[in-house]
Amino acid sequence: MKKTVIAFFLTLAFNYCWAQTLLPATQPNLAQKAMIKRGYGMFIHFGINTFNETEWSDGTLPLSSYNPSNLNPDQWVKTARDAGFRYVLLITKHHDGFCLWDSKYTDYDVASSPVKTDVVKAVADACKKYGIQFAIYYSLWDRHEPSYKDKDPQKYTNYMLNQLTELFTNYGNICELWLDGGWDRKPQDWGIDQVYKLVKKFNPACAVSVNHTIESTVGKRNFTLPSNMTEDNKYFFQYFPSDFRLWDPMLITKFDKKQYLHEGQSYYLPFEHTICLSKRLNWFQKAAQLPVRDIDELEELFYWCTDNDNSLVINVPPDQTGRIREYEANAVIGLGKKLGLSLKKPLPANGKFISFNRLVTASGVGIEKGKSFEASAINDGKLDSRWLAKDTLASIEMELDPTQSFNKISIFEYQDTKKLSDGFSQIRVPRIQQYSVDIMQNGKWQTIYLGDEPMGDCKVIRLPSRYQTSKLRFKVLKASALPSINEICIIDMPEKG
Amino acid sequence: MKKTVIAFFLTLAFNYCWAQTLLPATQPNLAQKAMIKRGYGMFIHFGINTFNETEWSDGTLPLSSYNPSNLNPDQWVKTARDAGFRYVLLITKHHDGFCLWDSKYTDYDVASSPVKTDVVKAVADACKKYGIQFAIYYSLWDRHEPSYKDKDPQKYTNYMLNQLTELFTNYGNICELWLDGGWDRKPQDWGIDQVYKLVKKFNPACAVSVNHTIESTVGKRNFTLPSNMTEDNKYFFQYFPSDFRLWDPMLITKFDKKQYLHEGQSYYLPFEHTICLSKRLNWFQKAAQLPVRDIDELEELFYWCTDNDNSLVINVPPDQTGRIREYEANAVIGLGKKLGLSLKKPLPANGKFISFNRLVTASGVGIEKGKSFEASAINDGKLDSRWLAKDTLASIEMELDPTQSFNKISIFEYQDTKKLSDGFSQIRVPRIQQYSVDIMQNGKWQTIYLGDEPMGDCKVIRLPSRYQTSKLRFKVLKASALPSINEICIIDMPEKG
Repeated sequence: MKKTVIAFFLTLAFNYCWAQTLLPATQPNLAQKAMIKRGYGMFIHFGINTFNETEWSDGTLPLSSYNPSNLNPDQWVKTARDAGFRYVLLITKHHDGFCLWDSKYTDYDVASSPVKTDVVKAVADACKKYGIQFAIYYSLWDRHEPSYKDKDPQKYTNYMLNQLTELFTNYGNICELWLDGGWDRKPQDWGIDQVYKLVKKFNPACAVSVNHTIESTVGKRNFTLPSNMTEDNKYFFQYFPSDFRLWDPMLITKFDKKQYLHEGQSYYLPFEHTICLSKRLNWFQKAAQLPVRDIDELEELFYWCTDNDNSLVINVPPDQTGRIREYEANAVIGLGKKLGLSLKKPLPANGKFISFNRLVTASGVGIEKGKSFEASAINDGKLDSRWLAKDTLASIEMELDPTQSFNKISIFEYQDTKKLSDGFSQIRVPRIQQYSVDIMQNGKWQTIYLGDEPMGDCKVIRLPSRYQTSKLRFKVLKASALPSINEICIIDMPEKG
Repeated sequence: MKKTVIAFFLTLAFNYCWAQTLLPATQPNLAQKAMIKRGYGMFIHFGINTFNETEWSDGTLPLSSYNPSNLNPDQWVKTARDAGFRYVLLITKHHDGFCLWDSKYTDYDVASSPVKTDVVKAVADACKKYGIQFAIYYSLWDRHEPSYKDKDPQKYTNYMLNQLTELFTNYGNICELWLDGGWDRKPQDWGIDQVYKLVKKFNPACAVSVNHTIESTVGKRNFTLPSNMTEDNKYFFQYFPSDFRLWDPMLITKFDKKQYLHEGQSYYLPFEHTICLSKRLNWFQKAAQLPVRDIDELEELFYWCTDNDNSLVINVPPDQTGRIREYEANAVIGLGKKLGLSLKKPLPANGKFISFNRLVTASGVGIEKGKSFEASAINDGKLDSRWLAKDTLASIEMELDPTQSFNKISIFEYQDTKKLSDGFSQIRVPRIQQYSVDIMQNGKWQTIYLGDEPMGDCKVIRLPSRYQTSKLRFKVLKASALPSINEICIIDMPEKG
């Protein structure tokens, strides 16, 4: 017992001394370990944009417009707790520079608005009350703050250090700092190392990162999608130091690697996903009520994103009254119930995938704008690559290992995305209308599932028993446009206890 | 202990002596008690029609056409057992007169066909093997048998008595006899009383009935839909004696009564529902693979039909190979798993309905062919009455008792039914495309569910927590035709243990 205690304090001391910079590693550090354990958080976009039907604003929106009629941060965090989230990630300041707390360093904040509640405090307090952790988003890019325009970038860095000192000293423990908007100036001009050191001084276990953490070529701002990063030690830090990788709202490959380079050294970095609960890509809540993602898609994305020591944050934004909408709360609480989430248990995992990179043959391969969308995309472990059929009546066959069984099939249909007039919102339009899943049994195709409902955002077919086969076929029987599929996952899911 | 044993034998003796006719009663008799306990059966339509793409045939189809390539009645019954059915109801002879067993009294049977397997025996044996009960369907109407055309109706009655004697003596215990096609001659010309007596001689616990059991006026063949029969002692036997009511494939009202009249006496009669697993009304299997009903609709219909001491039979017909199709087997097995069916437990029940006959107000009431479809239809306990909106953007409000809670909402959308060219098959076409469920809270509407997926055959909204409200609203946000709804059920569902 004594030895353990001593070891613990040594580790703590070591981490404390060294935590102010990031060390080369092949294993998670203190902050990363805590982050991996958390795994599942609720993103809360709330601010002056909420009241102006916009995603981004330029720092000139009048303070009087921030005016929630029934502000209730307790309800936000209670919803997060009820839904099984382990932390909330609150916007404290977005690109517009509006601060959700009473900051000494600006008047563009809640304290100068009609509703003066310190939202950061209210959320931090509710997190303590409900026993979940508190994380903050802070925008590097600031379209309001005058020092931002100063020729000397250190002026604005000092502004940030001052504000972050307020945040890290007045609101209890903060488990994560999410920095955004770095594209607006050169990476080295933000003073990320100073920010990192400051934060670690307050809390060595706080995980820090900047959106678009990783680049493909040093100093070039060339990017490779996270779904393509299947190799260690091939990509580089754009912002150093960062404890984890971000690329909002991209999804990782199932073969996600963790080693990234900085000045010739290799560092361990998990990935944190950020997705919207809404089917449309909407971060700040809109006056219109928008549909939420299907629970099946949410469940499969949960597994996909929290697997392999990565984590997932789902955006559930409060509306203009200052509350999370009831039907959105119901969606995440229902998801948590379906997943059986509990703070007392580790996050649940998906079953075993038996489909990755198996030989695939399609009835045809479509070409769009000179690019051919090959069949092999459907089981490459990437949700953003896709097969495109050549005909609306199409099929695709996958060879499987007949000694491996499966009882669940998740199909991510590629859907057309239409951008709406606000420049941010999107809707998804499905193509496939009727379809079957067939397996080869004794030389004949046998249909194990026949569907005439739309596939939705993700079609999950749960079979009541396990199958084994040498070949599986997905057949489109009716479609309104050329069928296209991102991924077909063949999974062996353990029975629930 | 002794007293119980004596009482049991007295009951048995009493029932045996009197079972050969039906007695006036307000409680179930021996056969009815056993039937109510069974509750859930699998209908098996299989015969010469299976091989001729038809629902009915006239008795002239060539025997050579009955030719299953891979006949496997064991698989049928194993599927039934795996799905939690407590009995199978096998077609032994349909209107075409083709017999699924080797009958001494006709050559129009399996024994004279290319595949001579005695299907009745194979199914009866499999039922013993898998521990479920065996019931038979036998058509009164016979379009093949020469004696049927004899002026003396007793000639054909004798044929039936002979065949039923074969069935009841050679295949072990038969729990139910389902007679059909009675419309083809006068009720008194079938010799139903002789059939009933014969069957009861072999097995007093066998439940016997004739399709379209009940009429509205004695001897007139006027019918009232089962969904309208909410009064005891108002309707009459068309076929006497019958142990239960049938009207294929109609659904009962939630306020189903049990007392029916015959010659001034009142008799107790439960109802047995028969529905198709297929979304289309297809009894015999077709070459084309047809989609099955959504699992949510099956679950809600299960509850609706097995509630109140009635029972449900789902048709799962084998195909031309002689097997139940895998995807159809998966559908019923998946349903059984979802319901948690087990031979060791009573059938599960739905939660408490808090919506019936509450005051309803619609945004408008549509008129079709001079008939107006009133709002009150949506909570009258009948799945075949309906409200029709006056505009595609419509809403309907229901007053509720705010002291009663609910956590599930089942909505049966009325769908247009298109008859296909075969004269039997139907497809259903939904209308509603986007919708919300709102409740009145502190004088404001609050959306608790927002859907943009089609409502399907039955939309079941499972809320993660219980609500109470004085008023609930269903609002149609988008529809392709005037929305119409059969029933909205507001239910308080106990949590699963």
